Amino acid sequence: MGSSFGKIFKISTFGESHGPAIGVNIEGLPAGVKIDSNQIQFELGRRRPGQSRITTQRKEADEIEILSGVFEGVSTGTPMAMVIRNKDQKSKDYSHIANQFRPSHADYTFQEKYGVRDYRGGGRSSARETVARVAAGAVAKQFIAQAFGAEFYAYVSQVGSLKLEKGYVDLDLDQIDDHAVRCPDRKMADKMFQLIDEVRKDQDTIGGIITAVIKNMPAGLGEPVFDKLHATLGKAMLSINAVKGFEYGSGFDGIKMKGSEHNDAFYQEGDRIRTRTNKSGGIQGGISNGEDIYFNVAFKPVATIMQDQESVDKGGNTATVSGKGRHDPCVVPRAVPIVEAMSALVIADFYLITRTNKLNN
Amino acid sequence: MGSSFGKIFKISTFGESHGPAIGVNIEGLPAGVKIDSNQIQFELGRRRPGQSRITTQRKEADEIEILSGVFEGVSTGTPMAMVIRNKDQKSKDYSHIANQFRPSHADYTFQEKYGVRDYRGGGRSSARETVARVAAGAVAKQFIAQAFGAEFYAYVSQVGSLKLEKGYVDLDLDQIDDHAVRCPDRKMADKMFQLIDEVRKDQDTIGGIITAVIKNMPAGLGEPVFDKLHATLGKAMLSINAVKGFEYGSGFDGIKMKGSEHNDAFYQEGDRIRTRTNKSGGIQGGISNGEDIYFNVAFKPVATIMQDQESVDKGGNTATVSGKGRHDPCVVPRAVPIVEAMSALVIADFYLITRTNKLNN
Amino acid sequence: MGSSFGKIFKISTFGESHGPAIGVNIEGLPAGVKIDSNQIQFELGRRRPGQSRITTQRKEADEIEILSGVFEGVSTGTPMAMVIRNKDQKSKDYSHIANQFRPSHADYTFQEKYGVRDYRGGGRSSARETVARVAAGAVAKQFIAQAFGAEFYAYVSQVGSLKLEKGYVDLDLDQIDDHAVRCPDRKMADKMFQLIDEVRKDQDTIGGIITAVIKNMPAGLGEPVFDKLHATLGKAMLSINAVKGFEYGSGFDGIKMKGSEHNDAFYQEGDRIRTRTNKSGGIQGGISNGEDIYFNVAFKPVATIMQDQESVDKGGNTATVSGKGRHDPCVVPRAVPIVEAMSALVIADFYLITRTNKLNN
Amino acid sequence: MGSSFGKIFKISTFGESHGPAIGVNIEGLPAGVKIDSNQIQFELGRRRPGQSRITTQRKEADEIEILSGVFEGVSTGTPMAMVIRNKDQKSKDYSHIANQFRPSHADYTFQEKYGVRDYRGGGRSSARETVARVAAGAVAKQFIAQAFGAEFYAYVSQVGSLKLEKGYVDLDLDQIDDHAVRCPDRKMADKMFQLIDEVRKDQDTIGGIITAVIKNMPAGLGEPVFDKLHATLGKAMLSINAVKGFEYGSGFDGIKMKGSEHNDAFYQEGDRIRTRTNKSGGIQGGISNGEDIYFNVAFKPVATIMQDQESVDKGGNTATVSGKGRHDPCVVPRAVPIVEAMSALVIADFYLITRTNKLNN
Repeated sequence: MGSSFGKIFKISTFGESHGPAIGVNIEGLPAGVKIDSNQIQFELGRRRPGQSRITTQRKEADEIEILSGVFEGVSTGTPMAMVIRNKDQKSKDYSHIANQFRPSHADYTFQEKYGVRDYRGGGRSSARETVARVAAGAVAKQFIAQAFGAEFYAYVSQVGSLKLEKGYVDLDLDQIDDHAVRCPDRKMADKMFQLIDEVRKDQDTIGGIITAVIKNMPAGLGEPVFDKLHATLGKAMLSINAVKGFEYGSGFDGIKMKGSEHNDAFYQEGDRIRTRTNKSGGIQGGISNGEDIYFNVAFKPVATIMQDQESVDKGGNTATVSGKGRHDPCVVPRAVPIVEAMSALVIADFYLITRTNKLNN
Repeated sequence: MGSSFGKIFKISTFGESHGPAIGVNIEGLPAGVKIDSNQIQFELGRRRPGQSRITTQRKEADEIEILSGVFEGVSTGTPMAMVIRNKDQKSKDYSHIANQFRPSHADYTFQEKYGVRDYRGGGRSSARETVARVAAGAVAKQFIAQAFGAEFYAYVSQVGSLKLEKGYVDLDLDQIDDHAVRCPDRKMADKMFQLIDEVRKDQDTIGGIITAVIKNMPAGLGEPVFDKLHATLGKAMLSINAVKGFEYGSGFDGIKMKGSEHNDAFYQEGDRIRTRTNKSGGIQGGISNGEDIYFNVAFKPVATIMQDQESVDKGGNTATVSGKGRHDPCVVPRAVPIVEAMSALVIADFYLITRTNKLNN
Repeated sequence: MGSSFGKIFKISTFGESHGPAIGVNIEGLPAGVKIDSNQIQFELGRRRPGQSRITTQRKEADEIEILSGVFEGVSTGTPMAMVIRNKDQKSKDYSHIANQFRPSHADYTFQEKYGVRDYRGGGRSSARETVARVAAGAVAKQFIAQAFGAEFYAYVSQVGSLKLEKGYVDLDLDQIDDHAVRCPDRKMADKMFQLIDEVRKDQDTIGGIITAVIKNMPAGLGEPVFDKLHATLGKAMLSINAVKGFEYGSGFDGIKMKGSEHNDAFYQEGDRIRTRTNKSGGIQGGISNGEDIYFNVAFKPVATIMQDQESVDKGGNTATVSGKGRHDPCVVPRAVPIVEAMSALVIADFYLITRTNKLNN
Repeated sequence: MGSSFGKIFKISTFGESHGPAIGVNIEGLPAGVKIDSNQIQFELGRRRPGQSRITTQRKEADEIEILSGVFEGVSTGTPMAMVIRNKDQKSKDYSHIANQFRPSHADYTFQEKYGVRDYRGGGRSSARETVARVAAGAVAKQFIAQAFGAEFYAYVSQVGSLKLEKGYVDLDLDQIDDHAVRCPDRKMADKMFQLIDEVRKDQDTIGGIITAVIKNMPAGLGEPVFDKLHATLGKAMLSINAVKGFEYGSGFDGIKMKGSEHNDAFYQEGDRIRTRTNKSGGIQGGISNGEDIYFNVAFKPVATIMQDQESVDKGGNTATVSGKGRHDPCVVPRAVPIVEAMSALVIADFYLITRTNKLNN
């Protein structure tokens, strides 16, 4: 269980880091959506390893093959399966951990849970799985663009203690991809790059925060009670490798406020009801109100470091795990398209659910 | 959609704040669990309004009636439905908002989504719905106690800017219920009480944080990829009314660390593999590792304040919403049993899923 | 598991034959549907015991209470829960089978499955559960009537060897309820009544067939591959107590035909594409084609007979089960509204799913 | 929707008849199952076209590629995806129906439902999809063999009016595969072969029945109310292309019996409770009782005939559909492994669900 996400626009991913392929099956993609495989490839390129010296040097072309669900460039309403072949596996790099548990990885817990595990590169627990999410998210984005036009942004707003103080409204979100770090403030981006590069040279890793924004949202998306829009976004984000926290709108800072400061007054603008402030983060009672949605996602420092660490092996004997393999010193720059992809998947699903909310649709 | 939670141990809640009843149907409760309805009633008592002067004065006995699934005090494996009758509705208090949208409530978004809404006390969006969660959680707790004995704690660790600096390991968690605020540090609890009471007198509200701890966890719970244990806990918490953020283990603070500081080294203790530190919060790769699980849940200041606020009505005309009704100046003390209940529901579900993970169970 | 049906218009039933109540929770009922509780009560009346001397003499008013999801006579889009209190339980009638297994009942299998069972009147396995389905089906019918107007018919077409040779097109379906047997051919209905009454006097039971027809269907309902419309209808029917077989369109008789005889030629009629014959039963490739849907449902003779039968008890000792309790000599007359209800639930669900099939809805 | 089956042992199939590949993703396969890909290939060989002159002459090696979920020959508990490449597509054969609707096919209904369709070979509605089911079923069989040893049989018991009067208990089920028709009675098999061959020469098609038997079943599988074992088996069978009817145990014939004849008396045999007769077909109250499960599945004559037929095109103009393509004159011989596969998938799923039924498993 656990490899599926969504209720109507539903994805199921499969594949191990060093198996033959990573793939995803999308069920519930409506018929009639023009599918541009170049756009899928473009998003995969944003996530691809080896983009700069601050990302892992694993080399994967990440070429997508569409196996089903598209005919003459248009979705047919049937499941759309896609596979990406793994090519640059260096499985030998991992033979030393066949019997050892890497600290703060999923080695031990997979072993306990299943009694067996594909230890090569973390197997199913590897962040390589997210290539499937990005491919599916690229399809969700195309659907949304053709259906109602919501727009997805994500950027790096913190690395270690380097924190971008400006809010998203004061940034030019079109500049995100102009810098390898994917922070739209050039000065801060340079500093972050330097910090990550230093950490890399120290054979260490560091954490960070990604801020995401969804613009041009219709009101009414999200379901009351358990499937609130922010709860589902939160789960989507927390399911990304290395994520430790999620907050939306005023978030953790909002707790210090009084209700009288925190509430967002309503007013009429043209034929639309709007709020004067947006501490709600575009979501009230778990349902979008038409204002921008924004949230923060906290990523821990990657567990794989190039240093020796204390651990135990399967037999419970003390062992020293040595740092091998190719990994990112800081995941946030490459996680940006993943955060966007998961956002688009959540919104696509709720949009379709919304069609079933009223007698007359 | 959206009123169900869980995959095997699955709950569905129903009912509006001012309708005849709130209820919950539990599917997937295994047969053979001794059900003590007093324990359910006890948990409801912890959540009940009117406990002290810092909670809402609505008076509800919150008496549970079990309609099915229990025979001679033991669960039968069939759906267990429970209802709690609403008694102290003062629906007249709400007639003034039949056509108005209260700021930062779900009035506007429900209207947009459904084209119709039960405006009395927020209808389905009211926190009164959580009485059903607490009842179901009390059943989950009994199941867990009889199956493997995990223990659930939650307490108030922050109100406004008043923050408890001690971690949970330095607190006596058995003292949580000794104080109306549900903070196990008496001194801090007194301060928090005072602050809430002041806010109440100012006809205002304030936010806070609940910290939760799950002890005596087996390893292996949680499913890889999308249904990671912390992602599911996160969704569960974010689905509670007024929650704006979730973090587990090192959380948002962990991002500032280096991987070499953050990683939890493994060692052998007796016949058990343990970690020397627990920045992972008891979860690695989305699966429990047997260490304590701990996380923080951020609650915004309640939206209902006893002050006049700017808003609009259904027709888009400017309106003044006046503060009426009976509400909590700060929700965290009463939200403690809700956080515990949701934790127990998540763990009960994953425990049952885990039985299907291996060929030989 | 197993007490829920449907994906979007989803019902969950609960309750035991001799527990406090039977109930149903409907999730996914769209907002804006006018709900007439008299119509629900009317359908329950059609299923109610004690209608004539050929049905069980258990006396239940079967009064419905709506607990949620309806405000000012209109559905709000939130879960609609309903309960029917059990009143005329004579649980003492069942104390003799607390330790015995009635032949061809679910006593033994429930005991094996759960290790415990509510033996009173069959507990959860009793056909009393279907009262909840009829209530939910009555809501589905109202939704469908207001949304697109499909019409549901079901009638008794066979009792024992008494078989109505006319097809549904040669019958007046408005006469179904004019006779206690619910066969629209008066002559045959009289014969069937006589046969059932004889069987009753012999303290025995007998089987029968219900034929169902759905008229005024739009094309496009049903999902390819596993959730074909007829597969889902089949499951719905086979889930009704005592059902042993299902066939649609040409059914079991169709196997003897050649493809050239069996195929339904297409032609244009006005602006609609139609078929000249309808051996497909209104369904092609699992999807409705706009022609009438029709199918047969086979019911075995009820297992409860008023005669002594050989069996064993929980300890494996030989035992004689004596016939007690109040039961129907033939279930088909009272099963007619149940078949209709399940049909309506299937169609309501697929109708809503269909809204998500295309980019532009 | 509709391309997934199962709740815990869950399969999702994808792919079109003339697309690049057909595939299946299995979620919920427990870890630790030895996977023999030769056995998967063996089952695919039983379903493969071109086995004799009475099956379609499309040539497909149907080679399986396992993409994930298996490591060193053992399942890892993660999703197991498999693909089969399509090789012998002759898509040109279908250009004539790009705008025409073949009678009793899914062409018209797909067009109505989705507004677009992959017309080549029926696209997603083609029986080629069942290759994915057989692959998944072969995995389910291996899991079941290693877990508890239930055995699956299916055979042709009727073709046109040629009906095998012997029941399964009087047949040698090990001889099923000895004859191209897959009827274990050699004499009858020869007659059936002749009939199918005649029909083929007439460029026509004919229907038939498959009888299935599941032996060595444990008691307790199947869930009460909606997910009854026979209801789920029924849905599984009705979801197979060309199926029009399903009956289990005494089936449609049982309706003529009295309850006193139909009931299966219990007795003790060694340490096992058994029934003297088995009109229940091994299922009581929707739950297996440990006796053999048996059921019949009715297949209509295949819709594709090599004759000209009246129809209409997309514009509603009269059209003549001419018989082209390569198809089976009678599907039942090749459908035998499909019926077995679906049976195994149902049983695997219920077996895993059963592990969650009791407090102490």
